[in-house]
Amino acid sequence: MAKNKKMVDAITSMDEDFAKWYTDICTKAELIAYTSVKGCMVIRPYGYAIWENIQKNLDGRFKALGHENVCMPMFIPESLLQKEKDHVEGFAPEVAWVTHGGSEKLEDRLCVRPTSETLFCEHYANIVHSYRDLPKLYNQWVSVVRWEKTTRPFLRSREFLWQEGHTIHETAEEAVAETEQMLNVYADFCEQDLAMPVVKGRKTDSDKFAGAEATYAIEALMHDGKALQAGTSHYFGNGFAKAFNIQFTGRDNKLAYPHQTSWGVTTRLIGAIIMTHGDDNGLVLPPAVAPIQAVIIPIQQFKEGVLDKANELYETLKSAGIRVKVDDSEQSPGWKFAEYEMKGVPVRIEIGPKDIENNQCVIVTRHNREKTFCSLENLADTVAEKLEEVRKGIYEKALKNRENKTYRCKTIDEITAALEEKGDGFVKAMWCGEEECEDKVKELTGVGSRCIPFEQENLSDVCVCCGKPAKKMVLWGKAY
Amino acid sequence: MAKNKKMVDAITSMDEDFAKWYTDICTKAELIAYTSVKGCMVIRPYGYAIWENIQKNLDGRFKALGHENVCMPMFIPESLLQKEKDHVEGFAPEVAWVTHGGSEKLEDRLCVRPTSETLFCEHYANIVHSYRDLPKLYNQWVSVVRWEKTTRPFLRSREFLWQEGHTIHETAEEAVAETEQMLNVYADFCEQDLAMPVVKGRKTDSDKFAGAEATYAIEALMHDGKALQAGTSHYFGNGFAKAFNIQFTGRDNKLAYPHQTSWGVTTRLIGAIIMTHGDDNGLVLPPAVAPIQAVIIPIQQFKEGVLDKANELYETLKSAGIRVKVDDSEQSPGWKFAEYEMKGVPVRIEIGPKDIENNQCVIVTRHNREKTFCSLENLADTVAEKLEEVRKGIYEKALKNRENKTYRCKTIDEITAALEEKGDGFVKAMWCGEEECEDKVKELTGVGSRCIPFEQENLSDVCVCCGKPAKKMVLWGKAY
Repeated sequence: MAKNKKMVDAITSMDEDFAKWYTDICTKAELIAYTSVKGCMVIRPYGYAIWENIQKNLDGRFKALGHENVCMPMFIPESLLQKEKDHVEGFAPEVAWVTHGGSEKLEDRLCVRPTSETLFCEHYANIVHSYRDLPKLYNQWVSVVRWEKTTRPFLRSREFLWQEGHTIHETAEEAVAETEQMLNVYADFCEQDLAMPVVKGRKTDSDKFAGAEATYAIEALMHDGKALQAGTSHYFGNGFAKAFNIQFTGRDNKLAYPHQTSWGVTTRLIGAIIMTHGDDNGLVLPPAVAPIQAVIIPIQQFKEGVLDKANELYETLKSAGIRVKVDDSEQSPGWKFAEYEMKGVPVRIEIGPKDIENNQCVIVTRHNREKTFCSLENLADTVAEKLEEVRKGIYEKALKNRENKTYRCKTIDEITAALEEKGDGFVKAMWCGEEECEDKVKELTGVGSRCIPFEQENLSDVCVCCGKPAKKMVLWGKAY
Repeated sequence: MAKNKKMVDAITSMDEDFAKWYTDICTKAELIAYTSVKGCMVIRPYGYAIWENIQKNLDGRFKALGHENVCMPMFIPESLLQKEKDHVEGFAPEVAWVTHGGSEKLEDRLCVRPTSETLFCEHYANIVHSYRDLPKLYNQWVSVVRWEKTTRPFLRSREFLWQEGHTIHETAEEAVAETEQMLNVYADFCEQDLAMPVVKGRKTDSDKFAGAEATYAIEALMHDGKALQAGTSHYFGNGFAKAFNIQFTGRDNKLAYPHQTSWGVTTRLIGAIIMTHGDDNGLVLPPAVAPIQAVIIPIQQFKEGVLDKANELYETLKSAGIRVKVDDSEQSPGWKFAEYEMKGVPVRIEIGPKDIENNQCVIVTRHNREKTFCSLENLADTVAEKLEEVRKGIYEKALKNRENKTYRCKTIDEITAALEEKGDGFVKAMWCGEEECEDKVKELTGVGSRCIPFEQENLSDVCVCCGKPAKKMVLWGKAY
């Protein structure tokens, strides 16, 4: 394989420099390009096609649950942003401000939306009057801006693409159920389709969304042992409704405040895919979102019949609904092998004169580079099986990585020792519930609280930090 | 029908006040809502679903022709915008400026993209090196901002949604062919799917896109006789390439400048649909983009078997790929009739106890309100035929309106007389090619040049204005 590697631009190895490995993949697999707009990037066709597949999958899930898409303005007047106290405190310091339109100076400056709760609330105040108007289950696919100081492609950029769901309900129970439902949708999508194991849990109060009553999140562990928050779902209670004076006439004919939620995932998921599944040969894409699921590479393509056969297989796979490509360019097979490994294509099919004679082809699965000879009979079924094999294989690999890097600790010293011996990872440890201890754990060990997992374990009766009675097991980690 | 009209909020009649009729439809058919962000709007679920259908259709057409989607930043540094002289002159006066990020004042202020030629050029300069890298056929679906003084929903708003195609080619011929091809894609989509007749033509030099060598457009005539530019396609030559120093090594091993195009349609198309097909009862939607193509309204729904039958028909139509809805709410059938007429649903299906006995239903087509009894056998086929009937019917109606309002004139006096007698419309008249005459026609008659149609007619040998030899027949009109 060393031969192949030389043929494409080499990427830094993960072990040598994980951060460099990551940005190498972003640029060399042609997911992004840098621009002169600091902290913003071009999402190139190959990267954008992954996002389109993520969008299509999630959009279908949202709509099946009764959600509708809308589109709010990208600007929020400063006066509107200020209506909810916690919200403005959380977001105002990190927004981009529009102060001039054409040559005219604006009286009320506008921020470019960092998130759209305020706009949705203004709209809900106009359209929600009666319990008959509820619930509204809205979502939008847009980009938002947060003026980050340090930026990295997909993980933290000043502009990023996302979806933001915003719902409004008659009762607190309904809104809580929606918050949980959407967290489950995200978790299921990540585990099933992105083959990425996640921990579901609730954020501690210090880590809640600005203005929320409760924030739930899914947390994934990257290959380097750092944690990545892959999606969040917020329950607002009626706090925003009160701040924006959204009221409805209830079934009892009395005025009441409705209850709200919001939830979102972003292009960050692409970063999570890279750091969960990628290796030193490049990207490894989960089949569900891979722009190309199978690439056909003709061997000795100048020989009679080879290209015809390759195109025949292409048609067979395409009509079976597989996203397939034939590369009949003039590059060598070896170059092509390396190229599509870099791009993370889950399945490679090689077909040459000898294969054709034997009515077979070679199939190589990207994640383990296993090579098998397969009959051309029922090829579409075989490829579908291989794709499923890849999905399961990369999930198992990621799960194993997470298990190897999850440390159950009873004392601060145990945390420090585990991290030192085994490297970064998830730490599970008990907590008394006090913010002081949360801060102290971070200060002493470097790992912050990621969430309070729904699946609790009773590791000890006392807080890992202060020794007082423990209330919850917390998942800790260093976060992207 | 007067009875139905009273049941929903009445809308202003077209003849009484066309502008008011238009905004009534926008709000009462729940396409948009106003916000506190001046000149920006909420696109509500029903309006956004129309846009999603437009997107899906066009995106499929673009991809089938080899285009790929990308995503550029929403910001353009002022220094980048200034690289192409004509372009910056055209756009700088009407952009929104970001001057602060968080609390930090920006050194180079950023405009919110009014269009993205400059960003694409910067990117192309980075990725195009050899003729082997060409063509790049890119598109993006985003929103853009232009600081308009007077705004109207869909037709002219400060933020609007669009797609912008940007392509770069080895030769001028290829780029010209792309420009023409994409204009044809737009025209075909408008005529076939939006059932909206359009005139294809080239803009006069005074009306070109800022920085373009040639701008092509499709022009449609609205119900009130005003013209609406429904899509544009620009040929840039190598002007942008020179300004941004994009060069490639050609087949002859020499450095050369590539040739570029851009092309776009916007949410304005929704405004065009409203003003082409709508009537005093509300929207009339072309089936191809209607969020609901057929609505089933149970009659005497409390009687046994009615709702079951309605749901059975729903399943039949749904599995045939028709976008269908059953309204089993507690509103009266009359209220529902008016409601879905307002929303422009192309086909209404009524089903009651007597219909069920006779194994039939009533089908009403929205555009002409024709009522027919149809057998429940092969209902999906019948509904598909009815949808096609609507498509053809509204196209014919729109074409007839355009024909009735197209005036062929040889003198300025003939133009004035035609507009006075028959009202606003398209004027066809010969032109010498001088900007002075173009301006004078507008000054004297109120109609400006819309385009130089590809389908020329020889109405006279001399310019309608100066009497000198005519070069082209121009299409004139008052524009939205």
